[in-house]
Amino acid sequence: MMEHLEEKTLAKKKLYDGKVIDLYLEDVELPNGKTSKREIVKHPGAVAVLAVTEEGKIILVNQFRKPLERTIVEIPAGKLEKGEEPEHTALRELEEETGYTAETLTKITAFYTSPGFADEIVHLFLAEGLSPLEEKRELDEDEFVEVMQVTLDEAVKLTEERRVYDAKTAYAIQYLQLKEALKEK
Amino acid sequence: MMEHLEEKTLAKKKLYDGKVIDLYLEDVELPNGKTSKREIVKHPGAVAVLAVTEEGKIILVNQFRKPLERTIVEIPAGKLEKGEEPEHTALRELEEETGYTAETLTKITAFYTSPGFADEIVHLFLAEGLSPLEEKRELDEDEFVEVMQVTLDEAVKLTEERRVYDAKTAYAIQYLQLKEALKEK
Repeated sequence: MMEHLEEKTLAKKKLYDGKVIDLYLEDVELPNGKTSKREIVKHPGAVAVLAVTEEGKIILVNQFRKPLERTIVEIPAGKLEKGEEPEHTALRELEEETGYTAETLTKITAFYTSPGFADEIVHLFLAEGLSPLEEKRELDEDEFVEVMQVTLDEAVKLTEERRVYDAKTAYAIQYLQLKEALKEK
Repeated sequence: MMEHLEEKTLAKKKLYDGKVIDLYLEDVELPNGKTSKREIVKHPGAVAVLAVTEEGKIILVNQFRKPLERTIVEIPAGKLEKGEEPEHTALRELEEETGYTAETLTKITAFYTSPGFADEIVHLFLAEGLSPLEEKRELDEDEFVEVMQVTLDEAVKLTEERRVYDAKTAYAIQYLQLKEALKEK
């Protein structure tokens, strides 16, 4: 059922070898035998952390995103280091970006963000049992964030106002809404 | 509150001018006055369509995604043409990919997929009042898809099995789960 949709690689060229992403151009053979080109961004993958305090507050970070030329409010997230377990990255990013650590990290799901042109995958974790770190961890030297704590209602409002504006954060907030709705039944 | 997080562009170079994406490298001045580089993928933006039949079935498409080297099951989606209204693109993509047309299209939300390195935005629509087209529309010549109709439970199962594996489709299925949960209360 899947093989007849496959696109075979005829040739592959690396166009750019970057700090975060690489770019490839592939010549492919389509299922009907014709050929086409595919532009493919390679990314190391990322983690994102839905961190919820005992009081039910969500920890978010406001940060400038150069591709969008604006700040958006996101759940803490970061790129996977080579060979690093997603769970380990998740805890590190939570600690670095928010100054909190977590007792438990539970995998919620994982998804590809832009399957048409990129292989980036985001592993999403739920962090609970939060407590402030006694000693703050350093952010990456090119990273600047503002930490916020909001209720679920406030998070939904931030989405409606489009200050929350990215897929992983929208998914995470909707996940909590669903959890609440199922609890109340 | 936002200005002090801003990264100013010092220099900008187009590294690749592609069919779907362009790649830029920017030198930026960080909030602390230091400099860094940002790799930025420019994308025309996209639409995605959560199409639900009268019987409550969701219309999905199975397609090969070269960046992932596998097929995944997604809601119908496609790139915005220059100057095209997202709603128009949404109806076109629904018709081309599934052979169905819709009486109503309602905007659910929009989100950036990979704000760390790309400006791609996905506009998500709910399509209702579906009926099969008498005359099928042609897919793009490099596009091959398999159409499926599934219940919400089956869609959730496809997500757990990781045949559904992308952010927009995961969000759309969770949106329907939330709608159901709120209805039953």
